[in-house]
Amino acid sequence: MRVALAQLNPTVGDIDGNAALVSEWYGRAWDAGADLVAFPELVLSGYPPEDLLLRGHFIEECEAALHRVAAGCTGPLAVIGVPVRVEVGRGRAATEPPVANAAAVVLDGRVVTVYKKIHLPNYAVFDEERYFTPGDWVPLVEWGSERLSVNVCEDIWNPGGPTEAAALAGGARLVVSISMSPYHMGKGGEREQMLRRRATDAGVFVVYVNGVGGQDELVFDGHSVVAGPDGSLLARGAQFDEQLILVDLDLSEADAFEGRAVSPDGYSLRTVRIEGAGTARRPGPARQRARPGAAALAPTPGDMVLESPTTGRSLLSREAEVYAALTLGVRDYTRKNGFQRVVIGLSGGIDSALTACVAVDALGAAAVMGVTMPSRYSTSDTRSDAHNLAGNLGIELLELPIESIFVPYLETLAPVFADRAVDVAEENLQARIRGNLLMALSNKFGWLVLTTGNKSEMAVGYATLYGDMAGGFAVIKDVPKTLVYDLARYRNSLDPNLAPIPESTIERPPSAELRPDQTDQDSLPPYDLLDRVVDAYVVRDESVATMVAAGLDRAEVERVVHLIDRNEYKRRQAPPGVRITLKAFGKDRRLPITNRYQG
Amino acid sequence: MRVALAQLNPTVGDIDGNAALVSEWYGRAWDAGADLVAFPELVLSGYPPEDLLLRGHFIEECEAALHRVAAGCTGPLAVIGVPVRVEVGRGRAATEPPVANAAAVVLDGRVVTVYKKIHLPNYAVFDEERYFTPGDWVPLVEWGSERLSVNVCEDIWNPGGPTEAAALAGGARLVVSISMSPYHMGKGGEREQMLRRRATDAGVFVVYVNGVGGQDELVFDGHSVVAGPDGSLLARGAQFDEQLILVDLDLSEADAFEGRAVSPDGYSLRTVRIEGAGTARRPGPARQRARPGAAALAPTPGDMVLESPTTGRSLLSREAEVYAALTLGVRDYTRKNGFQRVVIGLSGGIDSALTACVAVDALGAAAVMGVTMPSRYSTSDTRSDAHNLAGNLGIELLELPIESIFVPYLETLAPVFADRAVDVAEENLQARIRGNLLMALSNKFGWLVLTTGNKSEMAVGYATLYGDMAGGFAVIKDVPKTLVYDLARYRNSLDPNLAPIPESTIERPPSAELRPDQTDQDSLPPYDLLDRVVDAYVVRDESVATMVAAGLDRAEVERVVHLIDRNEYKRRQAPPGVRITLKAFGKDRRLPITNRYQG
Repeated sequence: MRVALAQLNPTVGDIDGNAALVSEWYGRAWDAGADLVAFPELVLSGYPPEDLLLRGHFIEECEAALHRVAAGCTGPLAVIGVPVRVEVGRGRAATEPPVANAAAVVLDGRVVTVYKKIHLPNYAVFDEERYFTPGDWVPLVEWGSERLSVNVCEDIWNPGGPTEAAALAGGARLVVSISMSPYHMGKGGEREQMLRRRATDAGVFVVYVNGVGGQDELVFDGHSVVAGPDGSLLARGAQFDEQLILVDLDLSEADAFEGRAVSPDGYSLRTVRIEGAGTARRPGPARQRARPGAAALAPTPGDMVLESPTTGRSLLSREAEVYAALTLGVRDYTRKNGFQRVVIGLSGGIDSALTACVAVDALGAAAVMGVTMPSRYSTSDTRSDAHNLAGNLGIELLELPIESIFVPYLETLAPVFADRAVDVAEENLQARIRGNLLMALSNKFGWLVLTTGNKSEMAVGYATLYGDMAGGFAVIKDVPKTLVYDLARYRNSLDPNLAPIPESTIERPPSAELRPDQTDQDSLPPYDLLDRVVDAYVVRDESVATMVAAGLDRAEVERVVHLIDRNEYKRRQAPPGVRITLKAFGKDRRLPITNRYQG
Repeated sequence: MRVALAQLNPTVGDIDGNAALVSEWYGRAWDAGADLVAFPELVLSGYPPEDLLLRGHFIEECEAALHRVAAGCTGPLAVIGVPVRVEVGRGRAATEPPVANAAAVVLDGRVVTVYKKIHLPNYAVFDEERYFTPGDWVPLVEWGSERLSVNVCEDIWNPGGPTEAAALAGGARLVVSISMSPYHMGKGGEREQMLRRRATDAGVFVVYVNGVGGQDELVFDGHSVVAGPDGSLLARGAQFDEQLILVDLDLSEADAFEGRAVSPDGYSLRTVRIEGAGTARRPGPARQRARPGAAALAPTPGDMVLESPTTGRSLLSREAEVYAALTLGVRDYTRKNGFQRVVIGLSGGIDSALTACVAVDALGAAAVMGVTMPSRYSTSDTRSDAHNLAGNLGIELLELPIESIFVPYLETLAPVFADRAVDVAEENLQARIRGNLLMALSNKFGWLVLTTGNKSEMAVGYATLYGDMAGGFAVIKDVPKTLVYDLARYRNSLDPNLAPIPESTIERPPSAELRPDQTDQDSLPPYDLLDRVVDAYVVRDESVATMVAAGLDRAEVERVVHLIDRNEYKRRQAPPGVRITLKAFGKDRRLPITNRYQG
């Protein structure tokens, strides 16, 4: 049996566009001789559609799109993710949401069965119990002499879950799992290990298709997987790129493997027998039946590959992985929201330099505008670094000095400020003048402002609300400062002859340059310590006591935790950015602003 | 039996402070001769604690506080809301959250039973399935010859739920329901009707205590209720104010009423027999046992009332209710976050005028600073209205003209803007200069900036990000413009001799005054139409087709819906504000920014 995994990039809310993508990739899989093609979770609505799912007409349009697409599916069997309505009494209590997260099985132009996701994630970035009612049965699709099952994303993460039930209790030899699994650092590798273990535990072939793309703060990393019943890795899709992956499987091999290690929970099984023309579509000659009017059966190079154990690509390094996630996140946020160009304030520092590199790699140099906005406190070093960076990247650079604007602000406020000492108010004014200039360019020319703050700064509030935080997308907001350095060096290493980021930018002690001789370390602990506390407190919810017991200095920990807590109000008004850690400042961290708890 | 309802105002995260409040109010209830005192849902943690509930040490501290408080509860029986840990296997699956939303029953210094909320709301502003594992049994507390039950908030909204189960299947004569029920317009009245119906259906006394206060975007409106088994209203707590409510009940009356209309679902019942001194605490002499060292039994006037059917207060009018909600929301956000003073930009328009009235009523005139920031487009009419408003309210007013700052911005940008036409970029610059000036005052003096945009503007993006949207709390962000007018007239009607809002402010066509002779209606449909579409599309998730079928003009509807959709990015960066409708722009409306769906 030739199996195709359609690792494509849908867009939330673009039902017609997504349906067209599914039809197009279905045709390509057919042309390539596939017997079965799997599409990602909720591919027709895009993922996550969030509160669009509360609109009855949205669900109806998704269902209508499914049936339109299905009518053209007269070749391979297809598994397509789609939200569907669920009536009260038919698997749903009156107090449950009227929608299910479904995998439709399509053959011979018809929807032959609709599986409803059983395990609904409702933690971290997920709110699926807000939207969906869970299914309560696992399908066993009898297709000719083959027996297979389908499930959706979270279902397959559960040991003893629907995968084992279908294989061990139901005798399925192939389980198709469709997914939109949000990226964080290292998740692809962990997921791959999980899938191989699940295949082994169930003694079954696992075909796991994951979508790809950026959606607001989430990035989906592709990296689809086919695992054999012995735990072997039979295919690994590209990370962070669209791809049609083709694999030839001999399902009779699954008979040699008994599942082990796990007993399935008591899932209800439902047998679905498929009749009709599609049932003849078996390995061998059937696969050669070309789509009417199709040009050729050969896979297209690049985004369509026939995988085998010997052609498997290797996993990206940590830095390459994160850099690719950032690039994809920026590209999709920009393009899916209809922007042609982005604008970035270049300070000469490492954060804006890295942001500019990502933007250029995502969109091309012509689509990136740099702006340097020197103040009375800017040094000639940082100014020349900004110019060198722009030159190295080949992007246009505007210079808009802020002094002539800063002065009348001070004059206007002088009678009110009177004899108060100069403090953060004057520092923030400068940052906000820069924010206003960037937003004026955005308003005049329709450019998207990319902000440049990193996670360490966002954590402790070392950023100016409406100043350097002003913009539409915060590229590195989930990247801790220590990782910013690693990524800068990684990007420079890709092009040793023309490393884009000046070495002086990397070497200079970081500074906001908002007062004379300022450095970040005047206000903050060293970044390696800060990043350890951010990881422990923000990502892992550790208490102060636990951090101190792990050897961190109590006074420093308490200082950082206090700063993190009191800056929740700033983060609430920050633009979205790419999530790359297990817990970003975004929808996966929901803390009250009004909050007296410490630690 | 004398029952006390402790309608108090806890603070999220302030475990020690909340515990002290509970102990203090317990003492007052004891002094007033209560046999039983009920505290709101999660009173020890504050509500909603959001992701604080993911920290194991936070839950442990709440439990420790419960046991400290309980040790002092040697008088009346107490029902206290608290998050508690739940072990795997003891009512919890491994994949469920390790915490329950509990009502602890306390007597004789000990926790005698802990009920775990069964019905967890996970819609609108609620995320309780993210945090809690549901309970699976309903308690029947046998206390001397009395039989009562307890449940938590959402539990009692379910017909046939734990209330009916306890009364109809278990024979309880009193059900104590503890709650933190977020306000929206008219909800208090609806909730009261529901509680009377529930009491009737179950043939039981219902004692429903709701907390009060503001927590970020939520306001809790108090309005606790005691309903008799015949559906009579026996007590109604103050709306939007703290109060200790005392009611004398003869539980034997419940025997005369058989529940009707509803059969309880199959809840598991668990009998809890209370032994010890507290069991003697019955109506009559026992109630007279004073707390050791207590001064008197008489209720204090004002915040402590002994209710009877004849002393029930009437419900607030719609305008009075919303105005009270806004006032409480502003007061609590300001005080609980430690601000002494707020600052508001006064344009001479109705939105900032209403915002200033609310702030003064919430905090007092001395705590409110007004700032008028005239531009080249400001008229003498609006300038004098701003001064008159400040004078009427008795607040200080600063005047900071923006022209001298606007000019160098234009000069700096002139080489880039070149021959482009003047447009929204120049308009927004002015709004952002004002935002910067307010934030500079905030940074220098520690004042909280209150923003003044209404819901109609927030919907269609008729506001400047980082401009008039800049600030910490958006007082009227959920108030549609048509209701802004009603509230302004309501506030003026309270003080006919010195109506604070100038009549000219109410009568003048609204304008942003960012270009010559501008009015809102140049860019927007009439506000009555706009508000109808906002209500249909935002609050009720109606489709364009439904709105058109209801008689609205298709072109206008499509225009407004398009504006609402494309301004999601702005709202994502808006400050929180008081929720007064069934669906605000806040945590109860979660839409993607990247979203191609229309309608």
